Amino acid sequence: MTNSWWLKPAQALNVAMREAALARQQQLTKPAGSLGQLERVAVQLAGLQGRDKPAVDKCWIAIFAGDHGVVAEGVSAYPQEVTGQMLHNFIMGGAAISVLARQLSAQLDVVDLGTVSPLNLPGVRHLQIAAGTANFAQGPAMTAEQGERALAGGRDSVLRAKAAGMELFIGGEMGIGNTASASAVACSLLECAAPLLVGPGTGLNAAGVARKTEVIERALALHAERAAGDPLQSLLCLGGFEIAALVGAYLACAQEGIAVLVDGFICSVAALVAVRLNPSCREWLLFGHRGAEPGHRHLLETLQAEPLLDLGLRLGEGSGAALAVPLVQMACALHNGMATFAEAAVADRPA
Amino acid sequence: MTNSWWLKPAQALNVAMREAALARQQQLTKPAGSLGQLERVAVQLAGLQGRDKPAVDKCWIAIFAGDHGVVAEGVSAYPQEVTGQMLHNFIMGGAAISVLARQLSAQLDVVDLGTVSPLNLPGVRHLQIAAGTANFAQGPAMTAEQGERALAGGRDSVLRAKAAGMELFIGGEMGIGNTASASAVACSLLECAAPLLVGPGTGLNAAGVARKTEVIERALALHAERAAGDPLQSLLCLGGFEIAALVGAYLACAQEGIAVLVDGFICSVAALVAVRLNPSCREWLLFGHRGAEPGHRHLLETLQAEPLLDLGLRLGEGSGAALAVPLVQMACALHNGMATFAEAAVADRPA
Repeated sequence: MTNSWWLKPAQALNVAMREAALARQQQLTKPAGSLGQLERVAVQLAGLQGRDKPAVDKCWIAIFAGDHGVVAEGVSAYPQEVTGQMLHNFIMGGAAISVLARQLSAQLDVVDLGTVSPLNLPGVRHLQIAAGTANFAQGPAMTAEQGERALAGGRDSVLRAKAAGMELFIGGEMGIGNTASASAVACSLLECAAPLLVGPGTGLNAAGVARKTEVIERALALHAERAAGDPLQSLLCLGGFEIAALVGAYLACAQEGIAVLVDGFICSVAALVAVRLNPSCREWLLFGHRGAEPGHRHLLETLQAEPLLDLGLRLGEGSGAALAVPLVQMACALHNGMATFAEAAVADRPA
Repeated sequence: MTNSWWLKPAQALNVAMREAALARQQQLTKPAGSLGQLERVAVQLAGLQGRDKPAVDKCWIAIFAGDHGVVAEGVSAYPQEVTGQMLHNFIMGGAAISVLARQLSAQLDVVDLGTVSPLNLPGVRHLQIAAGTANFAQGPAMTAEQGERALAGGRDSVLRAKAAGMELFIGGEMGIGNTASASAVACSLLECAAPLLVGPGTGLNAAGVARKTEVIERALALHAERAAGDPLQSLLCLGGFEIAALVGAYLACAQEGIAVLVDGFICSVAALVAVRLNPSCREWLLFGHRGAEPGHRHLLETLQAEPLLDLGLRLGEGSGAALAVPLVQMACALHNGMATFAEAAVADRPA
């Protein structure tokens, strides 16, 4: 790959602004530290945005969709045509993320990277890189050229978000079979055995999970030589177009200076790929929730992530991150709007 | 006590509406159960409100404040005048709960049950039952008549909320020393030793926690005979005016048919008193968060509560419950606004 834009460094955070925000938190009319994680979120955003009053009022939700050849191995509880049907549901307003975007007055950007049957839906950007990825149990999921187009598809959504003045980026995903793909990529990057990370996804029973695990173990062996220690090759061999788009989006956000709220298991795998490719992006990533997929806990620990919610969600679409947006907004409102001890003439505790 | 209004039964929930909501959740365009705890919240609210489209758009936040005689024993990190100073901060808009109420467009109702120095603040309801409770390490915290006035103070706020058409009630509290009082009440009700439930409150160090524990153990011995197995007597002997007001408010909400979002440790102790006094109120109580105070986890388990947030909060004022409001609102929006598989022509998984 000749033009590896994704390796360019992330924007540096404003350390002075972060320190000022930390000092302000100590002066607000509350016991020091009593707003817990919300204090850390406000301080981090002040550093990222370089403002004394951080804000995430303008929120962009990009949903990346794609199909997966590995579905031929019987790794999902749902039929493959659901990917395209849900694209329609996103723009018609009936999907969970559509409802949440309305609640948040967020901008929804729906990008189809490639479904098995080509679609032409008004309101969806159809990139149609291919009719889904190839079956990674038999060969690489995508070519380098396809992977590069998918990474760029993610970046382009971020550039649209930036042009629209957005302050927070959420990436969501849709693609029948994509927990299998995400689990395989994560196993490859973390050099761990499939049973540690493979789970029921949208609702496999125990036999289904066993089959999915076996398929992934076989694929890991097939691609071991090419993927070992190489996050980009792991992504190309085992990933999905929508996962690659998320990787590109997260890296572009860090380069363009837009804070990210990462969604669940699949998005966290994309975040791991992004961090392995270009560690400078890490501090631009906030994490919305800990999902029900068993491997998510391990991934979050690896990323040293502190997710805001833990509600047993396993929907995807960016929904868990969207649900966390009001917490980030209220963290900012508290930081910006509370009185200091001096302003309110309230006695602080004796030092 | 002659007129024990608080023992009257709670409004029954609408079982048919709850079952219909449960059935609807299975038909929405998402894997069954994939919205986790939010599905249970929407189903519970449908049953409580008796509506197929539950809603909590109109939210009432009552803050009950009072002083505590037990502060004389050195159980708090803050000076006692902070209770009154914070009352001023609530109405001036600089406190955390003031900021959150603005964010939520919630109605704030500030009720002073009794501070050490009588105050006269515009925008605060001053009930001034007494100049704080008596020191419960030396005798009962309050008389039966005072306790009854505090319970009624909570109920009256609920009646104002009902008159204003409110759909969700949050109770908050302010009172230097009130984690000591709440811990003592909880130990009495749960018949457990003080070290299991006593924590740092607003920020005691280890020596401070040890002193607080010792004071509470002494008080528990002093009141053991009168309080044993009697939640009302435990409240009178060891509680605070604001805690009693919360108890009255929760019971009145259940009787008047308004769903409650319970805040942190102190509010959960009030919820425990309410449930012990009148178990029919339990299903009207939703829980906003698991706080940092170590005893909160034990209390929540006792109440079989499933809090929405776990952010390491330890502020009080109703802030943790207020932070959870958008989640409850989005749970309703998802329940009410998502398309069914049939409506969206999306294939469900094979049965």
